[in-house]
Amino acid sequence: MITLAEIEAAASRIHSHIHQTPVLTNHYLNHLSGAELYFKCENFQKTGSFKARGATNSVLQLTDAEKQKGVATHSSGNHGQALAWAAQQAGVKAWVVMPENAPQVKKQAVKAYGATVVECESTLPARESTLQEVQEKHGAVFIPPFNAERTISGQASCTMELHAEIPALDFLLAPVGGGGLLAGSALATHYLAPQTVVMGCEPEGADDAFQSLKAGKIIPCTQPDTIADGLRTSLGDITFPYIRELVQDILLCSEAEIRHAMQLIWERMKIVVEPSSAVALAGLLAHRSHFEGKKVGLILTGGNVDLAGLPF
Amino acid sequence: MITLAEIEAAASRIHSHIHQTPVLTNHYLNHLSGAELYFKCENFQKTGSFKARGATNSVLQLTDAEKQKGVATHSSGNHGQALAWAAQQAGVKAWVVMPENAPQVKKQAVKAYGATVVECESTLPARESTLQEVQEKHGAVFIPPFNAERTISGQASCTMELHAEIPALDFLLAPVGGGGLLAGSALATHYLAPQTVVMGCEPEGADDAFQSLKAGKIIPCTQPDTIADGLRTSLGDITFPYIRELVQDILLCSEAEIRHAMQLIWERMKIVVEPSSAVALAGLLAHRSHFEGKKVGLILTGGNVDLAGLPF
Repeated sequence: MITLAEIEAAASRIHSHIHQTPVLTNHYLNHLSGAELYFKCENFQKTGSFKARGATNSVLQLTDAEKQKGVATHSSGNHGQALAWAAQQAGVKAWVVMPENAPQVKKQAVKAYGATVVECESTLPARESTLQEVQEKHGAVFIPPFNAERTISGQASCTMELHAEIPALDFLLAPVGGGGLLAGSALATHYLAPQTVVMGCEPEGADDAFQSLKAGKIIPCTQPDTIADGLRTSLGDITFPYIRELVQDILLCSEAEIRHAMQLIWERMKIVVEPSSAVALAGLLAHRSHFEGKKVGLILTGGNVDLAGLPF
Repeated sequence: MITLAEIEAAASRIHSHIHQTPVLTNHYLNHLSGAELYFKCENFQKTGSFKARGATNSVLQLTDAEKQKGVATHSSGNHGQALAWAAQQAGVKAWVVMPENAPQVKKQAVKAYGATVVECESTLPARESTLQEVQEKHGAVFIPPFNAERTISGQASCTMELHAEIPALDFLLAPVGGGGLLAGSALATHYLAPQTVVMGCEPEGADDAFQSLKAGKIIPCTQPDTIADGLRTSLGDITFPYIRELVQDILLCSEAEIRHAMQLIWERMKIVVEPSSAVALAGLLAHRSHFEGKKVGLILTGGNVDLAGLPF
């Protein structure tokens, strides 16, 4: 199990590179939910998502020899941008394998951070084999998006900041895709705010964490169907044990609830969040009687959204 | 001329009612502009715009007899919401005259703050005569959206906060419609940061402040044509003298520049601003050589935008 010393070391390692993001509150959403809500705004994080934390923690721990070779990953989303940026900051080369049908704007963002985009077919086997080729050809080190201790330790810093700023939360809610953020959040809470109950929030259309927690073993979601594109991945063998041990429950929400929560956040909080970010509020509102009168932290995971394709 | 004591009294009068809004910076926009930009985020203000400041300052100075009668205004925009909210906070009745073709969502917002919406035809004479009727029928006190000393003094608090947080700005840029915010900003700067140069920013399609400053007298814009709906009004006889005396220049920008600036703010800063808010950045980018290497404060005036009708 990752130790308190390890997550503290990660937080201090990345501290000067990332933003200590603000915690926002909203009168209307408190009224609507009947709870006291504290939103940790990782949409304001470097590269627009919490992924900058884990990527930075991973890159900063490379050996000099590894730094010479560079880093690689496959991603059509926030981890690709985060790794490209973290590598650029450290003066390290980066290759990001992306499906050829990924939005042009996402490829541009990765390139703008100085990384090389390697296109492949839009299947998991193609992504994995292309990544393999990049690793073999350049000797680049694979930096996983979630299923790795350095990634989890980096993401833990987000919840560490939240507990330091808002003590004595009754609940902490985080969206769950691959589980890196949720595992890190659960660890940070276990060590630093053990009275706080941690729950994951997940779309009904990609409910592998819900199913896995119920079954006590990983049940991957083979055909995820959700607007929350950051949550379509399934748990990994490194993230799952933390979630099984330290997370009390997974709250499900429908697509309509996600869209509604996203619109509430945009209209009422005046901030831009991506659909995956809205899943924590959607989960809370779908189970609001459980949280009445409680102090609840929610992680808004990112704000990278195509303005031309809004769901409202 | 409104005195320093008066704007300080206004700021302290409204202090516990409004938000001290955050000042945000953005690495990419600094890079793009070549300047050091500080965005004062009134989109996070109560009711979603700086108008809450002037409305609160006005309502809190009503006599007890006036409070008994209530307040009224005509507005299809942010001032209506702000006055409805400020009146509700003070336990005062409010009537807001709105054109019958105003968006349903704006009427709902005013009603949600407990005010009575009085519909009228969508012409200025109809709005004024309907307001007159409301005043006569209920004895309600008219609270003007911009052309009044209490309104100007209230808006001044926004720039007072900015100077207190970010000292030694070279420039301060504020959008200009009726001129309440710009007059208040110029006053606050005159007293508290006289080394800072104040400029207004205005759409080419509603350039009455630009024309008026050039002519030395008010030249109203009779047919405003701009997406920046908060800036379609022309200067008033109370706001104009402050602008003539204390504002160095008015920067114009095109509709395309406004849309582009708005998109930059949404995508890069991850915040929701309305088109009028983007005019300060649009004005700066349209004249960027003037600001190179300078420390510039920009007021983001509001975030009330219909998500179903975005211009990008």
